[in-house]
Amino acid sequence: MRIDLNCDLGEGFGAYRIGDDAALLAIVTSANVACGLHAGDPEIMAATFAEAKARGVAVGAHPGFPDLWGFGRRRMPFSASEIERLVAYQVGAAQALAAYAGHRITYVKAHGALSSLAAAEPEVAGAVARAVRAVDPGLALLAIALSAQVAAGEAAELATYQEAFADRGYTEAGGLVPRGQAGDLITDPGKAAAQALRIVEAGGIPTSSGGLARTPIHSICIHGDLEGATLRAAAVRAGLEAAGVTLAAFGHDERPPASA
Amino acid sequence: MRIDLNCDLGEGFGAYRIGDDAALLAIVTSANVACGLHAGDPEIMAATFAEAKARGVAVGAHPGFPDLWGFGRRRMPFSASEIERLVAYQVGAAQALAAYAGHRITYVKAHGALSSLAAAEPEVAGAVARAVRAVDPGLALLAIALSAQVAAGEAAELATYQEAFADRGYTEAGGLVPRGQAGDLITDPGKAAAQALRIVEAGGIPTSSGGLARTPIHSICIHGDLEGATLRAAAVRAGLEAAGVTLAAFGHDERPPASA
Amino acid sequence: MRIDLNCDLGEGFGAYRIGDDAALLAIVTSANVACGLHAGDPEIMAATFAEAKARGVAVGAHPGFPDLWGFGRRRMPFSASEIERLVAYQVGAAQALAAYAGHRITYVKAHGALSSLAAAEPEVAGAVARAVRAVDPGLALLAIALSAQVAAGEAAELATYQEAFADRGYTEAGGLVPRGQAGDLITDPGKAAAQALRIVEAGGIPTSSGGLARTPIHSICIHGDLEGATLRAAAVRAGLEAAGVTLAAFGHDERPPASA
Amino acid sequence: MRIDLNCDLGEGFGAYRIGDDAALLAIVTSANVACGLHAGDPEIMAATFAEAKARGVAVGAHPGFPDLWGFGRRRMPFSASEIERLVAYQVGAAQALAAYAGHRITYVKAHGALSSLAAAEPEVAGAVARAVRAVDPGLALLAIALSAQVAAGEAAELATYQEAFADRGYTEAGGLVPRGQAGDLITDPGKAAAQALRIVEAGGIPTSSGGLARTPIHSICIHGDLEGATLRAAAVRAGLEAAGVTLAAFGHDERPPASA
Repeated sequence: MRIDLNCDLGEGFGAYRIGDDAALLAIVTSANVACGLHAGDPEIMAATFAEAKARGVAVGAHPGFPDLWGFGRRRMPFSASEIERLVAYQVGAAQALAAYAGHRITYVKAHGALSSLAAAEPEVAGAVARAVRAVDPGLALLAIALSAQVAAGEAAELATYQEAFADRGYTEAGGLVPRGQAGDLITDPGKAAAQALRIVEAGGIPTSSGGLARTPIHSICIHGDLEGATLRAAAVRAGLEAAGVTLAAFGHDERPPASA
Repeated sequence: MRIDLNCDLGEGFGAYRIGDDAALLAIVTSANVACGLHAGDPEIMAATFAEAKARGVAVGAHPGFPDLWGFGRRRMPFSASEIERLVAYQVGAAQALAAYAGHRITYVKAHGALSSLAAAEPEVAGAVARAVRAVDPGLALLAIALSAQVAAGEAAELATYQEAFADRGYTEAGGLVPRGQAGDLITDPGKAAAQALRIVEAGGIPTSSGGLARTPIHSICIHGDLEGATLRAAAVRAGLEAAGVTLAAFGHDERPPASA
Repeated sequence: MRIDLNCDLGEGFGAYRIGDDAALLAIVTSANVACGLHAGDPEIMAATFAEAKARGVAVGAHPGFPDLWGFGRRRMPFSASEIERLVAYQVGAAQALAAYAGHRITYVKAHGALSSLAAAEPEVAGAVARAVRAVDPGLALLAIALSAQVAAGEAAELATYQEAFADRGYTEAGGLVPRGQAGDLITDPGKAAAQALRIVEAGGIPTSSGGLARTPIHSICIHGDLEGATLRAAAVRAGLEAAGVTLAAFGHDERPPASA
Repeated sequence: MRIDLNCDLGEGFGAYRIGDDAALLAIVTSANVACGLHAGDPEIMAATFAEAKARGVAVGAHPGFPDLWGFGRRRMPFSASEIERLVAYQVGAAQALAAYAGHRITYVKAHGALSSLAAAEPEVAGAVARAVRAVDPGLALLAIALSAQVAAGEAAELATYQEAFADRGYTEAGGLVPRGQAGDLITDPGKAAAQALRIVEAGGIPTSSGGLARTPIHSICIHGDLEGATLRAAAVRAGLEAAGVTLAAFGHDERPPASA
């Protein structure tokens, strides 16, 4: 068994920092790097790409709404058509700075409110996927499992991979428990590690009643901005390795679901 | 004889506009498109690339300082090293939106204060050229003739082309008369057309004493943001065509100076 | 009879300009000045206040959403509580720059999407009014006639004045015909002048069927950013003066509706 | 003996935080609150003012260059005249949000590169002081002791107070050891406390050779953004109190130096 471990990184801006990028880059196998509109700046982007390269960590562009104040978490009033240009802009900027740092963007994953919207609304999901396709059809899409993002990626003929969360609770329907509701976050490192291992071993998403929504999972996501993120990420990695799971970036020796 | 005619375009932001892009795109052969940090936004960039594509106009990325308030005309306190990342970011964003619009960036030209600094300071010129090289070695550099930009482009092994201005006065040394000094601007359409023709026919830059600094000129630049820009651009084009000069984007059937 | 004539001014940003401020300041009696978040910057604000002072034009703070890209026309996802702080911030900045320029802010009028929301939603209208009250209870509120803004201003015990539009069409219910629908704009200068005169003489808002929604109107608004704004504003002023109406800023020799 | 203890606070932006505001507000007697251009936003400003009010901490506006990316530490290319409008804008915004939060701005202190420039260049110092004066002549100026800021404040007829640093090293001339040079920072809490006490007891600034530049000091500044700031601030306060020094905001029972 093998699985990817991904985390949002490079989310600082100027003198500001969110998350312990150095520690997390030593744990994950894929880094979703903010592109300067909701977080990140050219200095942080280049430094994150260089550090990821040095550690053998794959990098993805992590576009969000142009909302530094809201950290990309507000649902900004952009049309699906405008979102296409917003995503294209950010993917290109990330590709250029990755090249500058000697690394290469291999995938795109939407951030925050843009990701939530794309998970729920096929039109937004399609906008994100079409933008990625237009910029570079060789890029993969990292999609929230069982969400509208998956179908949109496949419709755009992008290699589309599915992620599940180690540190978020799922509803009975396989969706994420909304932030602020009971069971939204899994803060205990041991429980997060256990959820990650269950996802990988059982091959799907654990529902709130203890069931499983079966679907291929290619990556486990850890939130880097939450309290205790580094400890939790380390526990997830250690738990997977102890169970014999190989940690490696997705897309290197497997076929995406669209081709299955 | 043939020559390129270039102009800064796509310099609006949201509801704001500077220059008559539609009129100018019908006249020039190359459009330098702002990349969102000193002017431009993803909507304007994509629309400008699409319109340029439709009209057969070549497009270049036109990076500047991150200074929307100052329109990129202030000398911002960034180090040469930081300028590398600033330029890379913008070139990548422009490449992506050009691809999205079905077009392709073929060159880079620095904007405003970044261009002035790069014309005078080899370290800044080198930063711009190295950034372009790192992002895509197939991109050309459009440099102010006889400035530090030229040597930097050649040192970075970029195809480097030289531009001269139809609407700016030159000093005896072949530099631009600084803005605000007598003779800085050539506002009369006929005089701008005459200067453009002289540059092309004589093969160099007209100095203030009536002499000529001989150097290969591949492109004539027209400022699009000055009062009367469209009339002047039309006069320059008409004057060149009347003299039998072919207007065409640089780089297609000629060798850059570095290879001469 | 007397009436105020107000217009949004100072809506440029850096090198960008919208509207012919100099021409309009010679026509209106009150200027709603952008506060730097959706348009305007400290240079433009101070210059606009100084010019208004020189011309005897009253000045109001014109706060909007923090959305330079969208010119304050997008409905940004801020809560009513957050809107209070957004408005307070902008009113204070405007007061300070007016004082710096030797003038004084006497009223507040919301801009764009913030105004539309406040016209329709009592909670947003209350947020705007409470913010004004908290910053300076001596400030008046310029409200869209018959909208939720009026009740909110009165509830906050602000001197509350009502405006009607010379260049916008009204529905049968006395609301504005939404932008983009037939009859939304009155572009003909003569028709705009006629509507303004009718509003003043009849004392209310002209409905689409030719009726009148009676309500005290203290100010006529002219949009400065629309094509032909200056001609239309001049026609409105000339028409009112020809009919013997005195043009003067509201609030100087009359009682606001809340005290009526 | 009595002294004020001031600290820069409210320096976050959106989801970003710098410094432990809650802890520091329990220690200091004056809070310099960022005004939204180099740090801070309306939400953070209002919350900081409210918390300061609850704790009986005086508040000052802390204007800086409009440079969120550079945290106000870059020397931005603004003229002294432009700096006047920049400062006025920020002071007004801070006054309004303080009023909104039930508190009141009593002084202004420049931030970062703006403060450094104003300390060295009388023209910039004059711009800051004139802006404060124009907005509200009742505001005090908190100036770096023995710098150009002091004379500028007095020339503008502002109540002008002097501060010295507990956690920065001084040169023989009484200036600050530039950041990055040996002796720039005093990180040890005990040493910072000792320097603060020496400043208060001896009545002046300790020079590098162990001497003293005598001048009235009204406030001790602690940097809140440095590693270990809270511990250091607590040690400074404890050391002063142990020596019988009363901690209280400046300006309440003493005369400023201009009146001495």
